Amino acid sequence: MSQADRWLLPDGIEELLPPQAIALETQRRILLDQFHQWGYELIMPPQVEFLESLLTGVGHDLELQTFKVTDQLTGRMMGVSADITPQVARIDAHSWPVNGASRLCYCGTVLHTRAASLLSSRSPLQIGAELYGEAGSNADFEIISLMLQSVQAVGLKQVYLDLGHVGVYRALVAAAGLNHEQQRQFSEALLGKDVTAYAELVNKHISASYQAAFAALITLNGEPAVIARAAEIFRDIPGAMAALQDLQALTARIIARYPSLEIYVDLAELRGYDYHTGVVFAAYVAGHGQAIAKGGRYDQTGSVFGRARPATGFSADLKQWVALTGVTSLTADAIFAPLDPSEQLWQAVQKLRGEGKRVISALSSTDSAQTCNCNAQLVNVNGQWVVESISLKGSA
Amino acid sequence: MSQADRWLLPDGIEELLPPQAIALETQRRILLDQFHQWGYELIMPPQVEFLESLLTGVGHDLELQTFKVTDQLTGRMMGVSADITPQVARIDAHSWPVNGASRLCYCGTVLHTRAASLLSSRSPLQIGAELYGEAGSNADFEIISLMLQSVQAVGLKQVYLDLGHVGVYRALVAAAGLNHEQQRQFSEALLGKDVTAYAELVNKHISASYQAAFAALITLNGEPAVIARAAEIFRDIPGAMAALQDLQALTARIIARYPSLEIYVDLAELRGYDYHTGVVFAAYVAGHGQAIAKGGRYDQTGSVFGRARPATGFSADLKQWVALTGVTSLTADAIFAPLDPSEQLWQAVQKLRGEGKRVISALSSTDSAQTCNCNAQLVNVNGQWVVESISLKGSA
Repeated sequence: MSQADRWLLPDGIEELLPPQAIALETQRRILLDQFHQWGYELIMPPQVEFLESLLTGVGHDLELQTFKVTDQLTGRMMGVSADITPQVARIDAHSWPVNGASRLCYCGTVLHTRAASLLSSRSPLQIGAELYGEAGSNADFEIISLMLQSVQAVGLKQVYLDLGHVGVYRALVAAAGLNHEQQRQFSEALLGKDVTAYAELVNKHISASYQAAFAALITLNGEPAVIARAAEIFRDIPGAMAALQDLQALTARIIARYPSLEIYVDLAELRGYDYHTGVVFAAYVAGHGQAIAKGGRYDQTGSVFGRARPATGFSADLKQWVALTGVTSLTADAIFAPLDPSEQLWQAVQKLRGEGKRVISALSSTDSAQTCNCNAQLVNVNGQWVVESISLKGSA
Repeated sequence: MSQADRWLLPDGIEELLPPQAIALETQRRILLDQFHQWGYELIMPPQVEFLESLLTGVGHDLELQTFKVTDQLTGRMMGVSADITPQVARIDAHSWPVNGASRLCYCGTVLHTRAASLLSSRSPLQIGAELYGEAGSNADFEIISLMLQSVQAVGLKQVYLDLGHVGVYRALVAAAGLNHEQQRQFSEALLGKDVTAYAELVNKHISASYQAAFAALITLNGEPAVIARAAEIFRDIPGAMAALQDLQALTARIIARYPSLEIYVDLAELRGYDYHTGVVFAAYVAGHGQAIAKGGRYDQTGSVFGRARPATGFSADLKQWVALTGVTSLTADAIFAPLDPSEQLWQAVQKLRGEGKRVISALSSTDSAQTCNCNAQLVNVNGQWVVESISLKGSA
C-alpha cells in the first residue's frame, strides 16, 4: 500500500464528514427524542460480546456477518455486534428485566463482514425500538406506527409499507408435513422470488390436497385485498386463518390511522424467517429498492437466555436515511472573536456561547471573520464587546 | 458456557442500561453542542479501517490495543479503531482538507484488546476535539480551555490540571546524544516513575556536563513555579528554554482565565511521547487516580498521509464521566393513554408528544397508569381527552 493510498477505506465502510455528520446527529436526536416521548428507554448494548451470547438463537446469516476476535483475557471468541436486536433480547432477559411491557430503544454502530445487499453499508448506524412482553397486535400496531412516525419525522417522503405474516407459511408447512431440509428449499425459493424453482418444489414435495394452496402462496401479494383472497384459499389450513385474521385486523387499523399510506401485502415474505414468529413489515421509499426500515414479531429470542418473552420491534440504518434525505449545506452563522487576550473578551465570548451562539476565536493575527467563515464579529465599541453583523459584498 | 452464563459480558466491556444511557446521551449532547458553539465540526470516522491506515505513525501500544480482523472482500487486514485521534489526522490530511485552522470533533465507541489501565474500559466511548493547522500556543490554550469547560459542563467537580511539555526531555536527550535504545530505556524509567532505575541510567549513560540536568528532570514536578526552577537548571541546553518559555506563557494564561484551578506541572511526563511534540496535559478529579481527559500537541501525525500539519487536541471516555458524575433516577413524568382505538385519542396523544411530553399507550386492558409508571393520564371528559395528574397516595 503506497503512502498515497493510506487514506482509502474498505468497501462499504464509510466515514461521515461535517455536513453529513451534522445531519445524522440531528436525525439521531429527533428519533431518540421521539422514542423517549413514546415511552421507550434508551439502552447502549456493548459493541463486542462473547460469541455464545451474541449468536445464540440467531440465524446463520448473522453468524456469517459477524466479525470474530479473540478475547486476550480469556482466550475465548468474541463477536463484534452485527445486529443490536439479539443484544436487546439478552438485556430484556437478564440485565433489565421488567414485568409486563418493556419498551427499549438504541442507536449504535454495527459491523458486517459482508454487505447485506449491494446497496448496503458494512458499518450501518443501527437505530431501533423494541417492545417486549406484549403478545397482542396492539404492540405490533404501536411499533409500526412508531416506525412510520420516525420515517416522517426525518422527512423521508413517498414511503410505502410492506406487510406479511410468517404464520401463514408456517401453517402451510405444518399442514403439508415438510421436513427441515424441504422447508429450507422452499424458503430459499420464496426468499429469492424464484417462481420456477418454487413450482418444481411444489410439484415434487406437496401432496395433491395442498398443491393449490402452495401454488397460490407465491401469488398472494399486492393490495391489502389479497388477505381476504388468502382467507378463501387457506380456509381449511389450521393456523393459517388465525394468522390472516391477525394481519387483516392490523392492516385495517393501519389504514384507519394512515389513510394515504400505500400498503403492499406479501404473504410469501420470509425475511427473517429463522426468528420471526408473526407479523413482518418493512418501509420503502419510491425509487430505492432496499427497505429503509424493517421489523416484525419475534417471540422466542429471549428463550436462549432463560426468559422467553413476546417481542416486536423495528430497526433502520441512519446512514442510509441521511443519504436519502440529503444534506443541507453547513449554515454559516458564526461570530468571529478577534485576537485579544483580555478577560473581558473571553467573558463576552462565553456569554454568547452560553446563549447557543457559535463563536470562533482567532488563533493568529492573520485570522479574520472572512478566513473563519463568520458572518458576524465581536468589535470593541467604547470598551464594550458587541456583535456586529458583516454585510454581504455589494449589499450596501 | 451454560445457558445461565450466556448473559455474561467480557471483562471491561460494558452495556449501559436506561438510567446510565440517558445520562450519557445527555452529556453527549451537552458536549457536542459546546464543541459546535466553539466552531468545531462534527465528524464520524469509521469503526474499522485497513491496518495500514489505522496504525501508520501511531505508537506500538496502540498497535497492541487494536483488534484485527480480515476483510473478506480483499483478504487484507483491518483494525477496529482503538483511538479516533489518528483517524482524525487522516481525515484532516485527505477527506476534509482545510486551508488554515480546522476544528474537528467526534464521539464514538473504540475497542481495546486490553484495558489501558486497571480502571479503564475496553470499550470506551471516546469523545474529543482536535485543532489542526495552528502551531502557536493560542491553539493549545483554546483546546485546554475547551477541555476544562467540557469537564465543567457535565458537572465534574474538584478538577485539577496536569501540564507538561515533551520538548524539555527531547532537548535533554538531543544534548546528551542518547541513541534510540538508550532513549527507550530512559523513557520507560520516567513513564514508570522508577527513580532508582532512572538514577542508574543517568550514572551509566550521561556525561558529567549533563548529569545535573538529567538528575533534576525527575524532580521537576509540582506547582507551576517548577517551570522557573527548570529554566535555571536547563539554561544552557539548546531547545529546552524554548519549550519552557512556551509552557510558562501558557500556564500564565491558564491561571489568569481559571484562577481557582489547581495546576500540577510535571516536566518528566512522557505520556504519548511517541507522537506528542509539545505541550501535554491531562485533567484529573480528586480521589480518582486515572486521568479523566487528556491531550497534547502532535504536529507530525498527518505526515504519513502526505500532509503534515500542526495539531493539538484532547479526548475523554464519556462512560467514565457518567460513572463519575453519577446518575439521577429516571424521572417519572409520563402520561398514560388508555386502551381506546379512537382516532381522537391518537390525535390527543400525538399532540402531547409533539409538545415534548412522554405518553405511554396501553397495550392491554390490564395496563394502567400505575403499571406503566405514569404520574398523569388522559381521561375523556365530555368527549374531550384531557390530562389529569394522578395524586399521590394519601395526599388527598
